[in-house]
Amino acid sequence: MATTTIANISGQNYIGNKLSVTGKITYKTYNPELQEENSIPFYEASDNEINEAVSLASKAFDSYKTFSGKKKAEFLNKIADEILNLGDALVTTYCSETGLPEGRAVGERTRTIFQLRSFAELVSSGSWVEASIDTGNPDRTPMPKPDLRRMNIPLGPIVVFGASNFPLAYSTAGGDTAAALAAGCPVIVKSHPMHAGTGELVASAIIKAAKETGMPDGVFSNLNSSGIEVGQKLAEHAQIKAIGFTGSIKGGRALFDIASRRKTPIPVFAEMGSINPVIVLPDALKTRGEELAKTYANSITLGTGQFCTNPGLILGIESDALDNFINHLSDEIVKINPTCMLHPQIKKAYHLNKEKILSEKQVSIKTTYKQDIANENYASQTLATVSGEDFIQNANLHEEVFGPFSLIVKCKDKGELEKAISSLDGQLTGTILGNNLEISEYNYLLSLLNNKVGRIIFNGVPTGVEVCPSMVHGGPYPSSTDSRFSAVGTSSIKRWVRPFSYQNWPNELLPDELKNENSLGILRLVNNKLTDQPI
Amino acid sequence: MATTTIANISGQNYIGNKLSVTGKITYKTYNPELQEENSIPFYEASDNEINEAVSLASKAFDSYKTFSGKKKAEFLNKIADEILNLGDALVTTYCSETGLPEGRAVGERTRTIFQLRSFAELVSSGSWVEASIDTGNPDRTPMPKPDLRRMNIPLGPIVVFGASNFPLAYSTAGGDTAAALAAGCPVIVKSHPMHAGTGELVASAIIKAAKETGMPDGVFSNLNSSGIEVGQKLAEHAQIKAIGFTGSIKGGRALFDIASRRKTPIPVFAEMGSINPVIVLPDALKTRGEELAKTYANSITLGTGQFCTNPGLILGIESDALDNFINHLSDEIVKINPTCMLHPQIKKAYHLNKEKILSEKQVSIKTTYKQDIANENYASQTLATVSGEDFIQNANLHEEVFGPFSLIVKCKDKGELEKAISSLDGQLTGTILGNNLEISEYNYLLSLLNNKVGRIIFNGVPTGVEVCPSMVHGGPYPSSTDSRFSAVGTSSIKRWVRPFSYQNWPNELLPDELKNENSLGILRLVNNKLTDQPI
Repeated sequence: MATTTIANISGQNYIGNKLSVTGKITYKTYNPELQEENSIPFYEASDNEINEAVSLASKAFDSYKTFSGKKKAEFLNKIADEILNLGDALVTTYCSETGLPEGRAVGERTRTIFQLRSFAELVSSGSWVEASIDTGNPDRTPMPKPDLRRMNIPLGPIVVFGASNFPLAYSTAGGDTAAALAAGCPVIVKSHPMHAGTGELVASAIIKAAKETGMPDGVFSNLNSSGIEVGQKLAEHAQIKAIGFTGSIKGGRALFDIASRRKTPIPVFAEMGSINPVIVLPDALKTRGEELAKTYANSITLGTGQFCTNPGLILGIESDALDNFINHLSDEIVKINPTCMLHPQIKKAYHLNKEKILSEKQVSIKTTYKQDIANENYASQTLATVSGEDFIQNANLHEEVFGPFSLIVKCKDKGELEKAISSLDGQLTGTILGNNLEISEYNYLLSLLNNKVGRIIFNGVPTGVEVCPSMVHGGPYPSSTDSRFSAVGTSSIKRWVRPFSYQNWPNELLPDELKNENSLGILRLVNNKLTDQPI
Repeated sequence: MATTTIANISGQNYIGNKLSVTGKITYKTYNPELQEENSIPFYEASDNEINEAVSLASKAFDSYKTFSGKKKAEFLNKIADEILNLGDALVTTYCSETGLPEGRAVGERTRTIFQLRSFAELVSSGSWVEASIDTGNPDRTPMPKPDLRRMNIPLGPIVVFGASNFPLAYSTAGGDTAAALAAGCPVIVKSHPMHAGTGELVASAIIKAAKETGMPDGVFSNLNSSGIEVGQKLAEHAQIKAIGFTGSIKGGRALFDIASRRKTPIPVFAEMGSINPVIVLPDALKTRGEELAKTYANSITLGTGQFCTNPGLILGIESDALDNFINHLSDEIVKINPTCMLHPQIKKAYHLNKEKILSEKQVSIKTTYKQDIANENYASQTLATVSGEDFIQNANLHEEVFGPFSLIVKCKDKGELEKAISSLDGQLTGTILGNNLEISEYNYLLSLLNNKVGRIIFNGVPTGVEVCPSMVHGGPYPSSTDSRFSAVGTSSIKRWVRPFSYQNWPNELLPDELKNENSLGILRLVNNKLTDQPI
């Protein structure tokens, strides 16, 4: 693997279609497997470059917002093609900047391609605009009824902040970007500094696709930055209309605060932290404790625990079966070889946050991987236990430890388990491990859990987020800043649009989606009936 | 009209089903027609009452969120019945607290009833939950595909702030309350102090309906308050999950700021100010100037200009036809007899805000109703003019004057008209008065206007907001705090729900909306195809 020199990467920003360097600050990415810096310096975007990117995006919006679904689909599909055309260079660069294995890079690329093509299909078929038509009635009394026609239209230029843990699927051309471009919004990506090379390669694929499919210059820009200033300036810019972010609660909240304090506040969709509670019910523990322990040892350590759906909290009711489960889980988890984290900073944060929890006097370490690990970027997986009462009273124990760590809460009875669930912050997911017969005894607990999460899983693991219309990835704060939207799946396009209504508008001047003839053949609510027929 | 004593009004708060007074602060409503206070003292909700209302709402949510659409529809329809059962007392009280005529009271009651019944129908038929099902595939490689099922679920207890200018349709049992109750959210109304008696009567109808249809105590509360403290405490309360507001930019922004600064921020849907630009194109002025002048004289003065869609800004290109239009509009508008404003405070604000604009040296008064008006709560309608250049440069001229006032902007050419549109803040509506042939010359102007508004009207007036699925009442900030939602029409239910996903959940434990058998017969997206069939 060529890791210290990365082919075809300039270290520059894409300001619309142009590579650009006007700033002086540089930084490098890091190879955590080799424990050394990669060679290419990346140039942080300057204030001029930021303003130029936003100005181009605003101009691009004038035409891009009017493009047909088919034309946007062509662009999205071409991005997918061009990402594939990057070939091995993308995989090699990805691995050199993340410490993640090649299989993960390839898998994440497949997911990214799938997302782009899913959105292409969505906007090509067109019904996603939720067109609604109420025809007028000039004879109604006491007032004539106007003709009203509604559809979703794009918000305007969007800023996307890439995720450290998903350099492809939730970064440069990831879910947020694909959804925003599909909606008709130009996108400016604030590249994640830990994988700036991967970001630039993907950006080059987007720019190539934009040129090949006749998109306006500025429909996409990619800005480098190692600190917070570039992101802050973008979030404050009057012409930016919304923000997508995947990352820490601290980072997401900072952006939310900036966006909320603006003269004209803008929506921020930040997908942030979650400890993803897993509730193990007594019968399941008795009959399947060993099997569940194996499954969970794998889920906790998957991707070195660096998933937002990592199960960081396991709750059960005290019993021999629970103790057996914990013992088996401990045995299984230390059988797994530790793996590399994304970056020394992330490893450091893992260690610090874990130690913070372990230093609480009520918490006991159950097991931790103790063998010497030659590479200090490798994370040793750890399990700890605490009583239900102590967990409920100590909010510090409710904080996410990003990495292969899980805290097991031993509640004395069902009532305490319910209180523990009630005490939780908002979560992306909640999981119930139970047998079909026993679950009906836990209706109230399920009702409490339901208030806290965006997705509820039965006898499975929270890791592994399927990309499909029925997925919800998001949930009550702080798992996301707006639980009314999902960050994964085609429904995530709704974050970047607003409804817009035409009253008594001449048919020939309406967008195709709302014309009488319905030449696009989309589903529309016409006088409260869903139909794909013309009027 | 009995105005100084209002029948069946206690002045107390409804804390769930109970009338309650524990506070000491009282205030009275005011009859602006008679220029005197009404007799009944209203008791502001105390901190204890606020906390009790929220606590009851939280408990009520546990069961209310699980109620079927049919059961919620029964409640909503019964509220409508009970509001009608209030009979003349409601109309009399409404008029005595607003200065609005009886016809308006009856019309607004009709609208309120229609809204309640529309939401009843929506949740009774059930497809509004946007159910989506992706069936699993255990044989998929490399990973089995999980079964995922998504639907909209309610956010939790909501606070609704009533509007001064819609004591029925956007207050106690108005659009926000109806939508939230339909969604499955308990509602706490912060009663508008100017029509507290009307509010209490409507609240009594809601409580009666709640008892008659077996709703949990706390599904609805009504809190009195003359100041900002009660609203502030409600907005800060950890168990409140969202806010609906109709009113001024200052009030809406204050709530938005409180909600955004919370440890756990919550969504605020505030429908605030708008000057509703009306663009008059040259050909229309030539052929229909007189007719348009008459229409607009009525629209500007309708309801004493106290509508959020009141046309406060008229823009055209300098020409003799524009001058003629302005002259006709001036002649017509002073033919209309002034009418009463809602409250002396609102009249005072109208006067102050109008004088603020008129005092700008570039602004000329075109006409103002000058006859002596015996009642100082009556508003004299006023028209003023300003050049396009001056309008563009002076942001003070872009502010709303709530009342029968309109500023006419005379642009020197199309380019200046485009710049004037670009300089505007977000608006609820934009209107084009033009002939079909000329409008194609204004594509760029339409594109600019489209970026600024939520609804665009052709050859009509912005006043008169139809309640139907295709209506959008909302728009870019500051016309609303979140342009992604409408405040009017059944789609407004989306403000109070979030998507929720079940993964591999046993069929018998799923809500009816997501069960295989689809016993509700609702439309669902099943493996990406919309169908009302079982699986």
